[in-house]
Amino acid sequence: MTVAALAGGVGGAKLAFGLDRALAALKNPVDGAGEAGLTVIVNTGDDLVLHGLHVSPDLDTVMYTLAGLADRERGWGLAGETWNALAMLERYGAETWFRLGDRDLATHVRRTARLADGTPLSSVTAELRAALGVRATVLPMSDDAVRTRLRTDAGWLDFQEWFVRRHQVDRVSEVRFEGIERAGPAAGVVEAIESASLVVVCPSNPFVSVAPILAVPGVLAALGAARAPIVAVTPIVAGKALRGPADRMLAWRGSEVSPAAVAQLYAERYPGLIDGFVIDRQDEAMASRIEALGLRVLVADTVMDSDDDRVALARAILDWGQALPRVG
Amino acid sequence: MTVAALAGGVGGAKLAFGLDRALAALKNPVDGAGEAGLTVIVNTGDDLVLHGLHVSPDLDTVMYTLAGLADRERGWGLAGETWNALAMLERYGAETWFRLGDRDLATHVRRTARLADGTPLSSVTAELRAALGVRATVLPMSDDAVRTRLRTDAGWLDFQEWFVRRHQVDRVSEVRFEGIERAGPAAGVVEAIESASLVVVCPSNPFVSVAPILAVPGVLAALGAARAPIVAVTPIVAGKALRGPADRMLAWRGSEVSPAAVAQLYAERYPGLIDGFVIDRQDEAMASRIEALGLRVLVADTVMDSDDDRVALARAILDWGQALPRVG
Repeated sequence: MTVAALAGGVGGAKLAFGLDRALAALKNPVDGAGEAGLTVIVNTGDDLVLHGLHVSPDLDTVMYTLAGLADRERGWGLAGETWNALAMLERYGAETWFRLGDRDLATHVRRTARLADGTPLSSVTAELRAALGVRATVLPMSDDAVRTRLRTDAGWLDFQEWFVRRHQVDRVSEVRFEGIERAGPAAGVVEAIESASLVVVCPSNPFVSVAPILAVPGVLAALGAARAPIVAVTPIVAGKALRGPADRMLAWRGSEVSPAAVAQLYAERYPGLIDGFVIDRQDEAMASRIEALGLRVLVADTVMDSDDDRVALARAILDWGQALPRVG
Repeated sequence: MTVAALAGGVGGAKLAFGLDRALAALKNPVDGAGEAGLTVIVNTGDDLVLHGLHVSPDLDTVMYTLAGLADRERGWGLAGETWNALAMLERYGAETWFRLGDRDLATHVRRTARLADGTPLSSVTAELRAALGVRATVLPMSDDAVRTRLRTDAGWLDFQEWFVRRHQVDRVSEVRFEGIERAGPAAGVVEAIESASLVVVCPSNPFVSVAPILAVPGVLAALGAARAPIVAVTPIVAGKALRGPADRMLAWRGSEVSPAAVAQLYAERYPGLIDGFVIDRQDEAMASRIEALGLRVLVADTVMDSDDDRVALARAILDWGQALPRVG
């Protein structure tokens, strides 16, 4: 089976890792069920230019995680990273609120150089992930520049300015994806959706990770026309976001902070798009509310602490998802 | 006293270090002899773009050496350097024949970003050296791009291609400084020469370190009009270059490999420019040949192994040089 996954950063990367390993175990199966493969379509609205370098935080998190190189303690960047270039940049008076490790810096240097050669971001990403031994296809949502901007009490902010520099303290009242109307899906995005036997919306932030991908002109239409069932995994467990500000962003809208609220958000914003919704065992009591939205529900262990957790969740989603009727 | 020094990489940087420390010791002197200071005018014909980054090897060697941060064993780059970004760049398939350490990489990233902002190289260099606590003024010879190209048995090569990548194996038959006719001296270069009480041509390669500086339109005229004596220090000691290919480049021209040959080269190429020439004690017997060219000669210990060696040579040059009559 072939899976297209829509992902932001850490949460999406963890499930992508599980899906990649689970699908690899299906390859060359005894029953000859054909090719198995994963394409991860990644948010690039968070991309930024730092020290003149093109940084794609979500693409890198997905790529490093799939390569088994991501740092688990810190939750971002590379394991065993060193910080000598950053210390020197700081000495030179450069802004260092966005922490770039030495090896991570090489990724941005290489990406920037290849982009400057005229190579599209999707091709550059293909080079980088191949070099890191990543088996899955990793695609930026778009080869065009899209910039997530947030209207806050402190004015309009770029995503990383709000997320990293200001530690998400400013209440967000509006989200915009600048440049989105001129953007198109990156090469391979529509094809991956069209040929998928299952589409998985990863447990990423619905407002700033999933929404930009769905906002790229052509992506929603491709998903609507897809033959594959589309399942979304909750980024909210027991009233909290596992990571990041999704819980606060729900609360700021006056919404309940729950998987049901996320399911409702998807159902309202993208009617008929999602066929199934995956919630955590801790939120099992909420299943009927989500089913009432017309969605099938899978109750699973969605908190992915270990590699085994990731693969187990992925397996549960694959088993359940591929048998789902397409209602969208 | 104020000194303007013309320098390439390692050899020039060592003497610049000595001059800086020796002049600092003269500051606020008991006899009220006024301000003492050093301006180092550095070759940028070796500059290159690597991974999209602007690398200025000679500027950095001078800057790191003056800051006391240069690696002494290796002879280039920063002491205590790490190489993690380079390993990652290699993994990405990038060319890594030019070794960039992690902290050194930050210098190039910062320089490139500031240049991209429209800041001239001389201003960027001023920022970098100030951040590193360098007291001396360090100036690129020009804010304009000049590229040293070498005609070799293997065709025309960029300087670093020949010097680093191909280990100077290709015989050089011609040296060109591309872009030199459109280049001007960087801001401060002519002023430093005009206001100097001594000009020192460091023990750098005459063909590829000193010649490009002197080839920048306006520099030779400024030196010719300078009130200060101009002294050059031999890069050849006992028939060998202390570092780099100056000895081979002399031999390839059919020239003797000796300080006298270098003095003659300067006298022929730049008639009347040099007033005094500094040779090593090991070559003392050659003094009369150099004096016959119309140059005063200082015999000194020119091999600078330790910081003390550097300062001692600088002191000897300052004492002798400032009393020299200007014959040029």
